[in-house]
Amino acid sequence: MAPKLMERVCFLLQVKPDRLDEYKARHREVWPEMLNALRETGWRNYSLFLRHDGLLVGYLETDGLAQSLRGMASKDINVRWQREMAGYFANLDTRRPDEGFLRLEEVFHLD
Amino acid sequence: MAPKLMERVCFLLQVKPDRLDEYKARHREVWPEMLNALRETGWRNYSLFLRHDGLLVGYLETDGLAQSLRGMASKDINVRWQREMAGYFANLDTRRPDEGFLRLEEVFHLD
Repeated sequence: MAPKLMERVCFLLQVKPDRLDEYKARHREVWPEMLNALRETGWRNYSLFLRHDGLLVGYLETDGLAQSLRGMASKDINVRWQREMAGYFANLDTRRPDEGFLRLEEVFHLD
Repeated sequence: MAPKLMERVCFLLQVKPDRLDEYKARHREVWPEMLNALRETGWRNYSLFLRHDGLLVGYLETDGLAQSLRGMASKDINVRWQREMAGYFANLDTRRPDEGFLRLEEVFHLD
């Protein structure tokens, strides 16, 4: 068998600067069903980091980002979670947060 | 023994927008001695990601960032590498790149 290709994904979103405390509080209590859905769809070693002005950096590892995103898109719990999160983000227009992020290019990696 | 505390570190730097191609090329050929020094001082699963405007995101795992930074600061190879890298970054003043980065706050993690 060919070895599995693991993708390291880094993405950015912009949290509204006046809602940072709320955003952080929500992420200390992510719904257990939401965490299960992420696990089931292959989101691994997934962290979110926040700059004081609301720039949000996501990092995760997956065997395929497209598949992990499609997997989550099909979960009711994610639709509900994204609906509640949408108000925290700037510049999303009508997209959900998981549709509106900017993926960055990996330029270096050391295991 | 208490379990080791692993830190996940996310940091930002700003690469000069007119030097992105060079910066990327240098990171396709990081000196093997520099890679060894990183490994020896506990930098693990270390990636760099770049936005089109030069915003650079670093992600790494370590048993102690302060110790890993001190370890690298004591390595000649790192002093040479940081000296060559300094010209690629904006807003460093007289600091080395590994002294001038902004660490972000982790607000969520899922293993």
